[in-house]
Amino acid sequence: MLKLRRFGIDTYPENVALLSRECVAYRAEDFQALKKIEVTGDSRQILANLVIVVDPTLIGPDELGLGEQAFRRLGLPEGSPVRIAQATPPRSLEAIRSKINGHTLSAEEIDAIITDIASHRYSPMEIAAYLISSASFMTTGEMLNLTHSMAKVGNKLEWDAPVIIDKHCIGGIPGNRTSMILVPIIAAHGLPIPKTSSRAITSPAGTADTMEVLANVDLPMHDMRSVVEREKGCLVWGGHVNLSPADDILISVERPLRIDTPEQMVASILSKKLAAGSTHLVVDIPVGPSAKVRSHIDAVRLRKMFEYIGDSVGLVLDVILTDGSQPIGRGVGPVLEVRDVMAVLRNEPGAPPDLRERALLLAGRMLDFDPELRGGAGHARARELLDSGQAFDAMERIIDAQGRNTARHTLGDLVQEVVSPEDGTVAAIDCHQIARIARLAGAPLDKGAGIDLFKKVGDPIRKGEPLYRIHACVPADFGFATDLAGEDSGYTVNGPSETNYTGPSR
Amino acid sequence: MLKLRRFGIDTYPENVALLSRECVAYRAEDFQALKKIEVTGDSRQILANLVIVVDPTLIGPDELGLGEQAFRRLGLPEGSPVRIAQATPPRSLEAIRSKINGHTLSAEEIDAIITDIASHRYSPMEIAAYLISSASFMTTGEMLNLTHSMAKVGNKLEWDAPVIIDKHCIGGIPGNRTSMILVPIIAAHGLPIPKTSSRAITSPAGTADTMEVLANVDLPMHDMRSVVEREKGCLVWGGHVNLSPADDILISVERPLRIDTPEQMVASILSKKLAAGSTHLVVDIPVGPSAKVRSHIDAVRLRKMFEYIGDSVGLVLDVILTDGSQPIGRGVGPVLEVRDVMAVLRNEPGAPPDLRERALLLAGRMLDFDPELRGGAGHARARELLDSGQAFDAMERIIDAQGRNTARHTLGDLVQEVVSPEDGTVAAIDCHQIARIARLAGAPLDKGAGIDLFKKVGDPIRKGEPLYRIHACVPADFGFATDLAGEDSGYTVNGPSETNYTGPSR
Repeated sequence: MLKLRRFGIDTYPENVALLSRECVAYRAEDFQALKKIEVTGDSRQILANLVIVVDPTLIGPDELGLGEQAFRRLGLPEGSPVRIAQATPPRSLEAIRSKINGHTLSAEEIDAIITDIASHRYSPMEIAAYLISSASFMTTGEMLNLTHSMAKVGNKLEWDAPVIIDKHCIGGIPGNRTSMILVPIIAAHGLPIPKTSSRAITSPAGTADTMEVLANVDLPMHDMRSVVEREKGCLVWGGHVNLSPADDILISVERPLRIDTPEQMVASILSKKLAAGSTHLVVDIPVGPSAKVRSHIDAVRLRKMFEYIGDSVGLVLDVILTDGSQPIGRGVGPVLEVRDVMAVLRNEPGAPPDLRERALLLAGRMLDFDPELRGGAGHARARELLDSGQAFDAMERIIDAQGRNTARHTLGDLVQEVVSPEDGTVAAIDCHQIARIARLAGAPLDKGAGIDLFKKVGDPIRKGEPLYRIHACVPADFGFATDLAGEDSGYTVNGPSETNYTGPSR
Repeated sequence: MLKLRRFGIDTYPENVALLSRECVAYRAEDFQALKKIEVTGDSRQILANLVIVVDPTLIGPDELGLGEQAFRRLGLPEGSPVRIAQATPPRSLEAIRSKINGHTLSAEEIDAIITDIASHRYSPMEIAAYLISSASFMTTGEMLNLTHSMAKVGNKLEWDAPVIIDKHCIGGIPGNRTSMILVPIIAAHGLPIPKTSSRAITSPAGTADTMEVLANVDLPMHDMRSVVEREKGCLVWGGHVNLSPADDILISVERPLRIDTPEQMVASILSKKLAAGSTHLVVDIPVGPSAKVRSHIDAVRLRKMFEYIGDSVGLVLDVILTDGSQPIGRGVGPVLEVRDVMAVLRNEPGAPPDLRERALLLAGRMLDFDPELRGGAGHARARELLDSGQAFDAMERIIDAQGRNTARHTLGDLVQEVVSPEDGTVAAIDCHQIARIARLAGAPLDKGAGIDLFKKVGDPIRKGEPLYRIHACVPADFGFATDLAGEDSGYTVNGPSETNYTGPSR
């Protein structure tokens, strides 16, 4: 037996264990560095990646070190006796090998794979093997079973209401912060809307990052429930809710490999909604030349996948294809996006009209799910709740219920304006490039970093007039962002002679 | 700048860097745990996986720790100033994403992938993505380009001789230790044979493990050359020669995932032979129900792949399909296999005839490549060199030249005999099961562990008579091996009434 020792390194999301090369109880040569071992103590067990320690001052010959993550998961005090053994590879890998050879995975095989992944039995390379084996080809049956399996392994939220409406946007459009407007609208209407959101991973702001400027979003499950009970709605970070742990782990490999297949996306989104207890869902698919979905054909294919899986798992779905040709609103980055959202909720005259209209479109379609409303009345009802200030009041109550943020986040004071190279009209804005610049400027880590857009597509502009302003908080980030904007501003400005004339030529 | 600190952990084959969460020069939150960073100092650079350190006594706020492996690779003294930056993902990943989408990789794309892999720019999950994307489908053109690229990135050996003959067996048959017999035969004939071999990874013994019982096999390149110059042949471990570094890294992911496609195998083997400077090659493909290749159809398909790629890269190839229905010789495990090999070389009356015949078959086909010999005379010449003792003498000289091992390895003294459950005839021996039992017994780590086979296929046997004896050195291993043998001995014994009668029935 070895003595458990806490070793102060952070290797989230992976478990790491450390064994001395001079270990007295085991032969270190029997174990390979970075391979998985089973650590067992007091009938608790975890899997961890092994690191062999050469320096005797770090880990003694009678000790087993566990990194912070692994130490917490095992949940035993320091000094506890523990055993180790080489981990046997998960059996479900056999199914992945047969998938590589062209077989279709059965429901049981997918279930075994997802259960093993959620139990941290897969290494990143094994997760990659599963993802790539399924990336080239996945049947609709496999997609359906994957959705069920992913929903099953996590927590399942139950709500004491017949209709739980949610909204999901597949992302990719900077400034598209509609959730913070439609949640208070739906809550003001009186329907429960327990909204969990993600933090940004590759974008300059997620809804959780932006809401955090105003309120605490880091609520345990129990507190989230009581906010929803009192105020009907909430806007919290989904990290504590553990709705689809397998999906969170799959994403940790999908992101760095940039694998983004529609099948995985549909299964990922719908499994989370199922686990969250949603009954009705509006899905927003922005389509545009620099959006995630770039053609109408792809968008319709994706819409049908959502509809097929939604029907099969019993979610009532309304999938909307929206204009994804440019950023929405004016601000990109948490503080700037909060400014736009609150301007819409306060009905300020200068509020970005496109953000207001997009939020009303989605909120209207969501309210159309309400059995109490007359068919087609959703949009008018949403507008009424927004215009009357009821939505703003609901938002204020939700902020107070979650815990109002008293620390004021201010806009980054390192600023540079990016100007038009010529007279003309804004012909296009590259969503992807704008997101990259805002991210380099420090968003979302620095809440006040980002981009303030002064011109949108179709706006006339003069040479030297600013297109947008970059805000940053840290000089190095400011330099990276302004350099990238200097290479490619993300804007296409057509001169006066290059108008998009599409009529017949003479 | 940070101060370099050596941190005593072994994470071979991966580089690990450690940064304090309280780091003064960088914001630890800007870096993600276990993601790759670039470490630069004094115009040297390596990539390493980052670990965030919470405990300030391990790594100070102005320090960057490097594990043993990474510290060696960077090659700077402790205290050197170093910079870090987030590593940009290798560009060649783009090609893998297009392969996943069904495109064929160009020669340039494969070259970029293999170069990045050999430079340690890929993480295991990225390597897995490449392997799986190519595992389902690879064109012969891709296989050919892969062979060229893998051979190109490592060392290339040059020999001052027009004909360099090598042999390769695809493996899977316990006891098939022919290299240790045919190398001295070829060397005694006078042709240079600079043989590099691997250590066992999943088998109970590799040629390097077995040769190590007799001599030093851990020779740097220069010493290997001088052994070959003096004695014509050598039998050394290939680890120092770095012939195909990309292949070594690919294998580190293929093994745990157990991906073993014929295309990867052919490219792997032939790239190493090309880099080793071989001009002629005999390939041994054992075919049998428990061998790697199980059907004649698969064997012919594999043979043709070898021949096509061999012809294209200019290697003269002779591919032989051999009987892989049972282990070869009697011993399985380093010390036992040395006993068999030396019995054959010494022409002892009890030497295993199947090992002798297999070695003569392969040596004969190799000698048939010698332009000085009359066509078809290879086998007789091989037998002459073995029977006359010239091969034995050559082996003794090779052992002395490499450095004779004076420490005597003895057979494990924990023994158990596994006996026949009934009277009858040995109908089959499962190569895979015999290998597993021998490996559990401790081979090849314990040189004296393994299995001594008393009966081969077709031998009559009585109930209670021993089939084989297990040898182990460590009680725990002994228990595992005897338990597994108790579950399934690996032998099939047919009772007297169950003879394999294949004549016409009356």
